[in-house]
Amino acid sequence: MTKSEMAQTSRMLVAVALAGMVTAPAFAQTAEGPGGLVHDAEYYVLMAQNGESWAAEDADIQAKLAALREKHGTPPNLIHIMWDDTAYGDLGMPGIQAVRGLDTPNINALAQEGMMFTRMYTEVGCTPSRAAAITGRLAVRSGMYNIGMLQESHGLNAEEVTLAEVLSDAGYATAFFGKWHLGDIEQSYPHNQGFDEALFTGYNQILSLNTREAEQGNASIGLFEDMLPENPYKLDDTFITKDWVMAAEGTKGGETLQWRDNTTESYEAMDDEGFKRMFAFIEANAKEGKPFFVASCPNMANFMPIRPKCTRARALLQNGLQCTIDPFIAELRAKLDELGIAENTLIVAMADNGPMSHNPPPGTGFAETIFRGGKGDFLEGGVRVPAFAVWPSVIKPGSLPNDMIHITDLFTTFASLGGAIGNIPTDRVIDGVDQTALLPNGDTAGRRDYTFTYAGPTLGAVVKGDYKRHMISPDPIGEASGIPAAFYFLPSDPREVQPMLTNLIHLKRPFNRMVLRHNLWKEKYPDRPETHGIPWTGIANASEALKREQNPQLILKDLPFDPLEYIDHLDELPFDPNADPSIGQ
Amino acid sequence: MTKSEMAQTSRMLVAVALAGMVTAPAFAQTAEGPGGLVHDAEYYVLMAQNGESWAAEDADIQAKLAALREKHGTPPNLIHIMWDDTAYGDLGMPGIQAVRGLDTPNINALAQEGMMFTRMYTEVGCTPSRAAAITGRLAVRSGMYNIGMLQESHGLNAEEVTLAEVLSDAGYATAFFGKWHLGDIEQSYPHNQGFDEALFTGYNQILSLNTREAEQGNASIGLFEDMLPENPYKLDDTFITKDWVMAAEGTKGGETLQWRDNTTESYEAMDDEGFKRMFAFIEANAKEGKPFFVASCPNMANFMPIRPKCTRARALLQNGLQCTIDPFIAELRAKLDELGIAENTLIVAMADNGPMSHNPPPGTGFAETIFRGGKGDFLEGGVRVPAFAVWPSVIKPGSLPNDMIHITDLFTTFASLGGAIGNIPTDRVIDGVDQTALLPNGDTAGRRDYTFTYAGPTLGAVVKGDYKRHMISPDPIGEASGIPAAFYFLPSDPREVQPMLTNLIHLKRPFNRMVLRHNLWKEKYPDRPETHGIPWTGIANASEALKREQNPQLILKDLPFDPLEYIDHLDELPFDPNADPSIGQ
Repeated sequence: MTKSEMAQTSRMLVAVALAGMVTAPAFAQTAEGPGGLVHDAEYYVLMAQNGESWAAEDADIQAKLAALREKHGTPPNLIHIMWDDTAYGDLGMPGIQAVRGLDTPNINALAQEGMMFTRMYTEVGCTPSRAAAITGRLAVRSGMYNIGMLQESHGLNAEEVTLAEVLSDAGYATAFFGKWHLGDIEQSYPHNQGFDEALFTGYNQILSLNTREAEQGNASIGLFEDMLPENPYKLDDTFITKDWVMAAEGTKGGETLQWRDNTTESYEAMDDEGFKRMFAFIEANAKEGKPFFVASCPNMANFMPIRPKCTRARALLQNGLQCTIDPFIAELRAKLDELGIAENTLIVAMADNGPMSHNPPPGTGFAETIFRGGKGDFLEGGVRVPAFAVWPSVIKPGSLPNDMIHITDLFTTFASLGGAIGNIPTDRVIDGVDQTALLPNGDTAGRRDYTFTYAGPTLGAVVKGDYKRHMISPDPIGEASGIPAAFYFLPSDPREVQPMLTNLIHLKRPFNRMVLRHNLWKEKYPDRPETHGIPWTGIANASEALKREQNPQLILKDLPFDPLEYIDHLDELPFDPNADPSIGQ
Repeated sequence: MTKSEMAQTSRMLVAVALAGMVTAPAFAQTAEGPGGLVHDAEYYVLMAQNGESWAAEDADIQAKLAALREKHGTPPNLIHIMWDDTAYGDLGMPGIQAVRGLDTPNINALAQEGMMFTRMYTEVGCTPSRAAAITGRLAVRSGMYNIGMLQESHGLNAEEVTLAEVLSDAGYATAFFGKWHLGDIEQSYPHNQGFDEALFTGYNQILSLNTREAEQGNASIGLFEDMLPENPYKLDDTFITKDWVMAAEGTKGGETLQWRDNTTESYEAMDDEGFKRMFAFIEANAKEGKPFFVASCPNMANFMPIRPKCTRARALLQNGLQCTIDPFIAELRAKLDELGIAENTLIVAMADNGPMSHNPPPGTGFAETIFRGGKGDFLEGGVRVPAFAVWPSVIKPGSLPNDMIHITDLFTTFASLGGAIGNIPTDRVIDGVDQTALLPNGDTAGRRDYTFTYAGPTLGAVVKGDYKRHMISPDPIGEASGIPAAFYFLPSDPREVQPMLTNLIHLKRPFNRMVLRHNLWKEKYPDRPETHGIPWTGIANASEALKREQNPQLILKDLPFDPLEYIDHLDELPFDPNADPSIGQ
């Protein structure tokens, strides 16, 4: 077979794989499905089997939500809170908190008074999880699978359509506060991606080590060359980054400003400033009667050990959860009560991925709890996180659904609740499915039984119900006997250490079919390559050092090549999820 | 220094180590402490610092218990339920049960309506945990650290004083039902160890594979030689065991009978028979107004896959917990309610050790949940188990103490509640401490901050509060980087994978001191060697094959040595907890 014949065969396989679907009644309304959304192939298989009963269920739910909308005069307010790196089990379960040495009564109250998800799946790291939440698409589709580090020169493409854009178009006020981590290029800034206002960081909490104080304490080494004795062997003054933006702020259509400076003091002040602005934003919109969407991602932790040890765990993560997130949740809920909008407000609060379980520094408190693996792994420990929802008028107290839900589902569900499904673009795959039914109806009302988990640009694992298949080996990251392409039954082996071949070999064809359909659908709707650019352009109050950093050609003007050309090729570096430590951040 | 000088120095060190204690007021009443009990050395250190406040607390509690005793006319009934091999977290936490695919509403209700212990420590395996519970002593002290397997020729020494004896002497009726696993020698049978009546097994659930059905299914290989083709090379007819007792029954002072036969059908019938007898025993004593103590250890599981898969986990362990233990708990509590004695009855229900996490057969559902390691390990996963207590008049609903409690404490606490402390012998160390205060007063009312965990006869690990020291390496059993004599801080590293040397090296002297005191105290109160004998003597209805098995000399009469002499030397075999698979059962 020639290459072109192979391609043709491949296209025929797409047709075959999807045959029978396009004529099935449940999604015959449009080319690809109801509401005009383009789903991933697997979802059409579910719709073909469940579409009719879901439609009947939806009619009841929509009537109930319409009554609520009528009562309050607006669709529900939507709040998404996301913090970092927490193991499933560490929140909402006092019997585990006793083990881990922390106590978060206000987060735990979310489970008692609302819903605790037992199978909330994220992406494997901060940037991809954030991209998935805000676009409703697997990060690999938006080219956002790489974890942004200092001067990454990479970010969310302007053509991606965010939840902020979708909800803005439906009349929502929108705001972002905290760890954005979706890029340091101008088009990626949150107020350039649909948010009315934003105070944000482009990277993660390692910013707390990109300080002069950290250089002094050896927590960062060699970043501040002016603090070191002069190096008489130094020949290149462009290698080490000279300046960057720790935090920035902006408004939709307005200018972008660096917020304060890159000091420990500024880093420490950021969360409180974000909370203050968030409460002011909520209050202003509540008083105006305007529905709002807020995404709040507190930094929570400072890697410089300057904070008091406020937990029995004596550790960075637990301190952040108990002493930053927990009181914030309490204050937020009190604010909603005070403004009389609690009943019409959905809060979803969750971690972005599993704990940093690989070689965590002492004193951080990162550890596996139930699942094997952590941040950076496609093992359950990397992607199955604590997650909660409260919505007093809709969610029954103590709901504990064991249905699968994926972080992309928040995009679609929030859009649905905001009456904004029609604003979602139909020229691309939206992985998120509308999980509205899960909120009022709880356990067994979920509409997903699968996930595709990518390790960088590579498909790492696939879950279907209680079955999981590793597509590549999770080791040597992990500690046990991962066999590539092994099959696991998660309830009896939640740590994925007992790969089964003979007992589960009947799963080979079902998983093959599922993955091939997923891949074939990408031929029609291809992944977006990474988007690159010069970091931190468009900052109105940029320092002279930052401007110089952006224009190295001024001092390298005689090179025989374009000194910035490399930026367009950043995604051509080898990417081994097991070898690249950046996947672990 | 000569050996005798060393011994003298060693004795002087005992005196030095204990100096300052014997004159402290809290335990000046007798030579070794209040109530005449001989505690382990570490407890005297705690008493010296807490004795006065404990005494004041005890006065209040005893007044309350006296009022209860007056109301009901008897001290409380005491029920100890213990099943096998369950990871902390798998019971009492619906958010974990969703992950593990089981649902035990009645066990979980024990946590809601009573107390869930978050730090209940056991021994590393079935036999030592049972020995510790029934004697109040670490298994190494009673020579019961070995796990009994078919025809082990070993058991609990008659000179050990059990909780049944202690409570019998205080007027309690006593009964044992289920997996005794404390020996197959006559002196070890439960009705020869103080129980008024018993239906019991001498070994563990591997008995379910010591059947003709298992031989046929290759689950046991070569145990039933009569099922195999004749082996023309066989020269020795005494090597393979010919007969044994799967289950026996007896009454105090009465005869011992084999119960039914060694078939799958009999194995399957045993738990129901035990439950039936237990309820009859409870009812009879309740009607007589006599306080009772029952120990119930359901077998729960059959390794032959003959039972329906009744859980989403589809696995032996979860099936046993959900479909045997959970309804049993419900039925028991209903019976106590029906008899009007629930308010005066303490139930403690728990696992005997962690899951069989090392190479479990597929379909068993054994897996680590929170902690690393399982049965056979001195890691937290081996010895920190789910445990619950209900006592409606005393324990506050939803109590969640994070205090340490050890399985030996049940002995002392039950004796205390039964007014039987005075019956505990004072010529030996009793490791169990009286944790009565923990029941009414809950979190922070515990009286233990340490454990010594033995791996067979060797001290494996020591815990003091949140600190743990490994005395030997847990690997290669485990999967990670155990360094001998490493120090761990459990809240931030519950899986014991981040040994810390520099950060925790200040713990070296405190742990050394603690271990040396523990060892020195053994010079005064030495461990009992193992007790050996011919298995299953004294069975009134013994089969001819069993009798022949007990008298191999009849066919070996011309040997130049005593063919039974080896029995006295069984404990001289090398014992490597990492190499001997029997530690894992």
